[in-house]
Amino acid sequence: MSRRLYELAGADAARRFSPYAWRSRRALVHKGLAFDTEPVRFTEKEKIAFSGQKRVPVLVDGARVVPDSWAIARHLDDTYADRPPLMEGVQARALTFTLAQWVQRVVHPALLPVILMDIFAVISDEDRNYFRQSRERAFGRPLEAVHRGEAGLPAFRESLAPARATLESQPFLAGETPAYADHVLAGAIDWGCNVTSLTLLAADDPVRHWYDRLPEAAPSRAADG
Amino acid sequence: MSRRLYELAGADAARRFSPYAWRSRRALVHKGLAFDTEPVRFTEKEKIAFSGQKRVPVLVDGARVVPDSWAIARHLDDTYADRPPLMEGVQARALTFTLAQWVQRVVHPALLPVILMDIFAVISDEDRNYFRQSRERAFGRPLEAVHRGEAGLPAFRESLAPARATLESQPFLAGETPAYADHVLAGAIDWGCNVTSLTLLAADDPVRHWYDRLPEAAPSRAADG
Repeated sequence: MSRRLYELAGADAARRFSPYAWRSRRALVHKGLAFDTEPVRFTEKEKIAFSGQKRVPVLVDGARVVPDSWAIARHLDDTYADRPPLMEGVQARALTFTLAQWVQRVVHPALLPVILMDIFAVISDEDRNYFRQSRERAFGRPLEAVHRGEAGLPAFRESLAPARATLESQPFLAGETPAYADHVLAGAIDWGCNVTSLTLLAADDPVRHWYDRLPEAAPSRAADG
Repeated sequence: MSRRLYELAGADAARRFSPYAWRSRRALVHKGLAFDTEPVRFTEKEKIAFSGQKRVPVLVDGARVVPDSWAIARHLDDTYADRPPLMEGVQARALTFTLAQWVQRVVHPALLPVILMDIFAVISDEDRNYFRQSRERAFGRPLEAVHRGEAGLPAFRESLAPARATLESQPFLAGETPAYADHVLAGAIDWGCNVTSLTLLAADDPVRHWYDRLPEAAPSRAADG
């Protein structure tokens, strides 16, 4: 059975930088499922038109088309219940959803000003017009006025304080082993690491040690699927 | 079997305002366990000296002495496994711990400047010296310089953005029914509501609707224990 994850890509198609697509990629690796990936640039929405919406990630899992990272995580646990769970039970699923809101509403907005012009630098020429227009309309300001680069790093690192405190007491956000809550936060770091050359996490930061402990998130044909 | 929760109290012993003690009170109510409460003022540490440490809450559950709200929550689930769980399984427990770090590291610090002088106003004369000295040492500034009152409300409300986003999709942080993650966040609101006359949450705030939906947190002799 073929399994394909559509991910946001830069001018160099090997550069993937959607935090949500990274969640899904990590979720597939977690489940030990084989998959390949397909790059989608901002202005290549036609590639995912079959999904009935315009955002990555989209997972095509055999005959099933699943857009949206949260729906993908639930699909993987529901469909492959015999494989390592991303979320163990209904309450863990609801709590993971709550933690994902923290990542989306607090961590992402703290990271975006650090890497905004880095994103602009790695996307294709065609994508730059789209990116500038859509983001400047949302921000109400030029990209350059929102971008802070290295000056934004302290606020980003501070936004991770709850994770840092957690990791003093347990090795992963989800406990003794990583689970979807970890992949959600890791997706934010993946996003940043794949566009910027800044050191997002200091070498002595427990969050960095946690990130380095997580399994590699490369798609694998070797895994059974 | 007797069950007693030691809680932080104001000059008026009926006023209880430790966010951590509120977590434990809500946890006991959640489990349907009967208990009474004992007020402890800041300068009445001798009342809980038997617990081997100086902080509330302390739960005395028959022969067991359990200090620390997190230890109390685990004790209640482990000891009364046949009653409604506060945390359903190991992963939910770990995720709840992570969410509790968010409450402690983000929500509490955002609320404290709103209510700091209100706390000072409701504690006993003896406690005021202790409170001012210990807090001013920690802040490195006079209480009055940290206190923001109503001016701090927007930042406090903004700190609740992840909860607000969650409650658009599910009725409680823990899913369809409230659980310990909800009690942890509710404890922060309880803390504020029991010292200030400010309206902490706007009437149309989904977080306020959630708070109003939670079970009453009064200790009950009627509950079976």
